Formats: sequence, structure tokens, C-alpha cells
Amino acid sequence: MAYSERVKALLGGIGEFSRVRVRLKDGSTLEGLILPRPEVGDPDVLLVKLENGYNAGIHVDKIQAVEVLGKYEPPKVEVPSYGTVMTVKGTGGRVRFVATGGTIMSRVDYVTGAVYPSFSLEDLYLMYPELRGLASIEMVNLMSIFSEDMTPTRWSMIAEEACRAFNDGVVGVVVLHGTDTMHYTAAALAFAIKSAPGPVVLVGAQRSSDRPSSDSFENLYAATLVASQAKFAESVVAMHDNTSDGVVAVHRGVRVRKMHTSRRDAFISVNHEPIAKVLTKEGKLIMNTSDYKGRGRLECSTRFDDKVALIKYYPGMSSELLDYLVDKGYHGIVIEGTGFGHVGEWLLKPIARAIESGIPVVISSQTIFGRVNLNVYRRGVELLRIGVIPSEDMHPETAFVKLSWVLANSSRDLNEVRRLMLTPLAYEINQRTRPMDYVV
Amino acid sequence: MAYSERVKALLGGIGEFSRVRVRLKDGSTLEGLILPRPEVGDPDVLLVKLENGYNAGIHVDKIQAVEVLGKYEPPKVEVPSYGTVMTVKGTGGRVRFVATGGTIMSRVDYVTGAVYPSFSLEDLYLMYPELRGLASIEMVNLMSIFSEDMTPTRWSMIAEEACRAFNDGVVGVVVLHGTDTMHYTAAALAFAIKSAPGPVVLVGAQRSSDRPSSDSFENLYAATLVASQAKFAESVVAMHDNTSDGVVAVHRGVRVRKMHTSRRDAFISVNHEPIAKVLTKEGKLIMNTSDYKGRGRLECSTRFDDKVALIKYYPGMSSELLDYLVDKGYHGIVIEGTGFGHVGEWLLKPIARAIESGIPVVISSQTIFGRVNLNVYRRGVELLRIGVIPSEDMHPETAFVKLSWVLANSSRDLNEVRRLMLTPLAYEINQRTRPMDYVV
Ligand SMILES: N[C@@H](CC(=O)O)C(=O)O
Ligand SMILES: N[C@@H](CC(=O)O)C(=O)O
Repeated sequence: MAYSERVKALLGGIGEFSRVRVRLKDGSTLEGLILPRPEVGDPDVLLVKLENGYNAGIHVDKIQAVEVLGKYEPPKVEVPSYGTVMTVKGTGGRVRFVATGGTIMSRVDYVTGAVYPSFSLEDLYLMYPELRGLASIEMVNLMSIFSEDMTPTRWSMIAEEACRAFNDGVVGVVVLHGTDTMHYTAAALAFAIKSAPGPVVLVGAQRSSDRPSSDSFENLYAATLVASQAKFAESVVAMHDNTSDGVVAVHRGVRVRKMHTSRRDAFISVNHEPIAKVLTKEGKLIMNTSDYKGRGRLECSTRFDDKVALIKYYPGMSSELLDYLVDKGYHGIVIEGTGFGHVGEWLLKPIARAIESGIPVVISSQTIFGRVNLNVYRRGVELLRIGVIPSEDMHPETAFVKLSWVLANSSRDLNEVRRLMLTPLAYEINQRTRPMDYVV
Repeated sequence: MAYSERVKALLGGIGEFSRVRVRLKDGSTLEGLILPRPEVGDPDVLLVKLENGYNAGIHVDKIQAVEVLGKYEPPKVEVPSYGTVMTVKGTGGRVRFVATGGTIMSRVDYVTGAVYPSFSLEDLYLMYPELRGLASIEMVNLMSIFSEDMTPTRWSMIAEEACRAFNDGVVGVVVLHGTDTMHYTAAALAFAIKSAPGPVVLVGAQRSSDRPSSDSFENLYAATLVASQAKFAESVVAMHDNTSDGVVAVHRGVRVRKMHTSRRDAFISVNHEPIAKVLTKEGKLIMNTSDYKGRGRLECSTRFDDKVALIKYYPGMSSELLDYLVDKGYHGIVIEGTGFGHVGEWLLKPIARAIESGIPVVISSQTIFGRVNLNVYRRGVELLRIGVIPSEDMHPETAFVKLSWVLANSSRDLNEVRRLMLTPLAYEINQRTRPMDYVV
């Protein structure tokens, strides 16, 4: 679709996607990118993508003049070299970056407004020379996906890559990851890497790295600092602690959850405090606990079972859904119950049937915060009697990841699954939930 | 199963469930209730239910003597009279209590430890004479269930009962309800009662009303005060604002969510502040907003569609599940996506198929807080293109309840469903989410 002759005359050869200043007859001006005429648009209306992301349609009658400011450079899409490890010398121990994609590895395409994975680790490293003061950094592009496309199989790949890095002798691993499902992957790595010579730090950004307001630098700086210097060797998430700059919170992978669609401080530790904070300006790591897994020998069990379902209960939920999972041969089911861990009475039968068929059923709570307790109410007692496994103070996502790990790495025997689900393996279960751990 | 002769001799006729003091040979003592011997228990081990709720097993060899302290009185289970309206004169306008069950209407059975619905409203009223100073209270027992057993059909029953009360001329309605799914019912009432002569206030307790530490009195007091005196006429939840006494928060039904398994202040407004607070000691209602529905004419549309599914997305979730819902003839699906509202790529096809089959698919976010935005990332754009409906800043439960209401009360035409889902009907959608509304 082309613009009208009048618009074309006004543009006088200025091409689509050029950056322009549009002077209106009323004396005001607008700046942005010339967009192609939309299919259903009025040919007399010039479409301009403004800096704030909005599109403005301006009728030719109102326009005085259009001046070119610059040319739009479409972001170059590089094909990252997967699997090769590249090194950039810095001061400090060897830290390996494992890139999986996500906003932190992305550019915004200002034309479509879309964000897509495109940076290479080299770009990132060049953008942030400060990282060289923290470590000697090695880089490997493992995959380039948004994290909504994560799967248990990909958790295994990331875990294996992290274990490979430790086998190669690094002191810490930083996993660059989309934020959407970062907490699932972080929990997965906590179970897959039982013990390690250093921490695995997941890091991401809520705004792509090429945007001035991006949180990616501070997060990445903190992650690198933790990977190289922390005394603990657990799977953690390093993300902004609040909306201003300066503090990055370090959350246990098994405890953390993305709790906001857009804020930089979207990640919150559930039923626990962040185990550490990084003051980025001072380059300081402050511990919040002295109870952690220290740096040790590497032990990896990286498999995950992908036949595990996470089902949220809701009023009136039909029992068919559970029957369906049993009939489909699922290996395990995590239910997000209500309150202390309840479901409607009509689900007792299909849950019992699942358990009788050898499928472990774990009950967690959709309140997210607090501890599941099946001893308080009749429904809880009934659920215990038919053999469900309470998730204790694990939030639903961690219970789901743990069940997937348990089923793949131990036997599928119900008693053994129950025993492992109720045993703290990576600080995912506290013996007692401290009341002040509720931070909502 | 009976205890051994040695234990029996020690008990000397003291019956099961008696309250006893057990003197041990080491000089210490224990108090509690004698429990029957468990099926698999050692007949020489006496089982005592301690005050703290735990059971202690004490071998007969260690016991010096057992003394009776009192007899256990099993709680009497009254059959409440359903449907009849009873009145107790007080000072102030007419407020009707509609009882549905839940902890607030329950006693603890100290033997089994279980809590079960048993109070009648009369009991409650006698326990709390302070309520008489607030209103002339009418009472109706509608049902006696724990709220994990709520269903869309029961939402309709409650909505009809509330509308009946307003038709009878009351100035406000208080719904006594279990806390587990109170937020779903509160949202349901907000849609079902478009306009009313007074507020509908849902209230519950995290601890049963016969326990000294119960939160039920303060919550009920605040609810009654709101029902009789508030200027707004919306569906709200009145529950403790913090862990101490004195302040009860009043949350919009469409905004509130149970966010903790056990704390009294488990209810939190999502993407909004509570619209009011009640200072219970001062008997004062403090408004947080001047933007509300005032008392007006009664308008009720009380139906809900029970063929709506709420599905939480998780890494690797199989597409079969969505296909199954389509094949089963569901009328609508709400998906809890990740981040801004995403799902794995492999779900685009089954979602498109659902929409092509005339089933509206709403995307919300499992982050709970924040606004769904399908314009930021490629996946969001792809989802929009196949026709999903974003839940805007409704959290998943409210989106689910709203879809159930829309499908039952308007046409099932996709365009009409979309239009209504995107139109604020009861303050469930803010045009813009204010950043400080994130209270986690
Ligand atoms: N959707 C993106 C968002 C992000 O990276 O922050 C992802 O999770 O990959
Ligand atoms: N499970 C109970 C809990 C409560 O009332 O607080 C219910 O929701 O009915």
C-alpha cells in the first residue's frame, strides 16, 4: 500500500523507516520513524512511530513540512555460534556465561516494537567493560530462546552445560535467561546440581540491553560478582531489589518467583528472605544468612521428567481433567490447591484413583506464600488419608520442578517419591516457616 | 484396637478422650486427651493428644500415673435451619447476614484437630453482642460448606440470596464465607450485582470463632459496620489488615486474593490499594478512594457458566490439555501465562484451534501482579494475532470469574465476549496500572 501523491510530495523521497521531524501547521512538532502505510489506512494519513512507542497518524492537511533526522538501522540479526567457548581475559577467577536468550540477550526493534533475542555475548561484554574487573569471562551461546519456550529438556541442557563449565574448572557460572520462567529453571538447577565448586547465577533483564533504562548491566554485574566471589555454591537468581538502582537481590532458585509482569524488582523470595544482596556501586556482596551450601565437589543429576503436570484448582473444576492426566499416562501431578492445600470434595475420588495407579500427587497452595498444612481441616485430613504429598512450604513452581527431578532421578516408587519430596534437598523446605517471611 | 493390659491397668477405667495429666517416672508431666490406640500402634504405648495439637506416644514403662482432669465434650453438630430469616433487633439499619460456612462458622474438634462448620448465626450473634450497636441484624443460613467446595452454581445461589435481601429492604449484606475461595466469590458477586442499595461484604476468619485468638470478631464487626454505614455499594472483602488487631482492610472483590495459607492478613489487593480501612477500636471507616459505585437501584444478573477452565501454563506443558478442553466442549478458557502473558510456541496452534471453534481464550499472568501486555514481545503479538483476549490488569482468578459471568449473561459471540472482557464493569480493569500498586 502506498501513501497518496500529496503525502509522497511532502516526503520528497524520504524513505520508510527514516527518522524525521514533522512540523505541523499549528506550530507543534513530532519526532519519530516514518512507517509504511498500513493496509487499511487512509492514504492521506502519514504514520509516524513516536519515541514513546506509540504510532501517530497525521493527516496531510495538518502537515507543514517533514525533515529527515537520520536513517533507521534495522537491528542486525547475528547467528550466534552455539557451543563454542570464547574467553575474554579479565582480573579474577574464571566465570562462564551460558546464554539461553531472553530480554537480556535482546534488542528492541523500534519499528515493530518487538523485542527479540539478537545480542551475542561478545556484544554484551563489549558494552560492559566493567565486568572485566570482576572475572576472566568465558562465554558460550547455548540457545537463543525466550524463556516462555523453556522445557524440562532444556533445563537438562542448561544443567549439563553448567556442569561442563565446572568440570572445565570455572569458579562460577552465570546463566543469561529470560525472566518469564527464570524461577523454574533456577529451581531446576538447584536440584540438578547437588553440589558444585561455585554458584550458578541466573540473570535477566526486564528491559532489553540496548535501552537506556535497561536493568541488564546492574543485574549482570551483580551476577558476575556473585559467581566469582560468593562463598555459597547454590543456584540463585540475581535481579533488581527495588525500582531504583544500586541493589541487586540474590534469591535462592528454589524460593524465588516472578511476581510482577513489568517491574525491575519483579522477583521475590517466597517464604524466605533473599540470601544476599549486592551493592553494585560499592561492588559489595552482603550475606543475609550463614546457612548455605559452600563451594564443594561437583555432583550433577541433570535429568527431568517431562510427564509431570501442574494443575491449578478453581471453584467447580471438573474431575475429568485429573482423570484425563491419569489416562494419558502422566508420571506425576502437582495440584495448586486453595488455602492450606484443599480441593473440592468431588476431586477426592480422581486423586485417589491417580495415586492407586502409581502416580504421585503433590498438593501445594495457590496462595503462594505460607505452608501447606493438611492437618487443620477435614479436607486436608481426607487428602492425606488417600495419600497425597503436601508441598510443605515449597511454592507450586518449586514443587513442580522438584517432582519432575525426583521422578527422573530416583525410582518412581510412591514411597520413595514421597520420602524425597518431603526431604529438604536444596533448602527448598524449611522445617518451620518464620512468620515474618511473608513479604507481600 | 485396644491397649495392652498394662496400659489398661494404668488407666484404671479412665475413658478415651478424657483429659488427663500423665506423670512420668522422670518427674515430668504431660497434659492432653487420651486417644484410642491407633491401628498399627504398639499396644504398650499410650497415645495422648497434647494441647499444642501434637500427639505424644508414651511407653507404659515410662509412666508413673495417669490422673483424670476432665471429660472431653465432643462438639455438638447442629443442623442449621436453611433459608429462614431470623432477626435480632439492634440500633441502626437492617443488615442481613448470609452464612455459607467456612472457619468463621466453625468449631475446632480438639480430638481430631479438625475444624468443621457447626455454629449457627444465632451463636455468633450471642457471642458478639457488640454487633447490636451497629445494625439491626437479620440472619439466614444458606449453606454450610468449606469454601474449597464452592462452585459457580453456588456463586449464583449466594448472589440470588444477596439480591433477595436487598429486595427485602436491607441496607447491606454480609456474607460469611470460608477464606480459601472467598476472593473468587467476591469477584463473582461484583459482576452479578451490577448496582445495589448497599454493599455486599464477604467476611471470614483464619481461626475458628471458638478459639481465643480468632480474628472472626474484628472481621465481622468491620463487615457489619461497612454493610450498614459505607457510602459505596460494591462487593468487598473485609479481613485483617495486618497481624495485630485494630485495623481491618476492605478490599474490592475483583482485586483481592488470598496470598498466604495461614496469616490473618492473608488477603491482599492486587494492582490496587484496599478501598477502605476500618479502625475497629474507634468504630471508624476510613476511605482510600473517592471513586466507587454508590448506593443505587438493584440490578442483578446472577448466572455463571460452569464450563470455563482456568489453566496454568508451565514449562513444557503439553498442548493435548488445551485440545482436550476444546473436544470436551468447554465454553471458555483462561490461561495463566508467564510474564506479560506468554506461553510456549507449541501452544499457539491449539489456542488458535480453540478460538476458531468459537471458544474465547483469555490470557492472564501467573505473576499475579502487574498488567498483561501482548504488545511487547513477539509471542504476545502472535497471541494477539490469533485472537486471544488479554486480561489487562485483572489477576487470573478475576479473569476466570468474569469470563464465567460474561458467558452466562451475554452472548457467546467471540466479539461480544472480547468487548465485555475488555470493558471495566466493576473496577476490575484500571486504564493504567499505577506503579506503586505493587505491594509485594
Ligand atoms: N519473555 C521474555 C522476557 C524476559 O526475558 O524478560 C523471556 O522470558 O524470555
Ligand atoms: N478451608 C476453609 C478455610 C477458612 O474458612 O478459612 C474454607 O475456606 O472454608
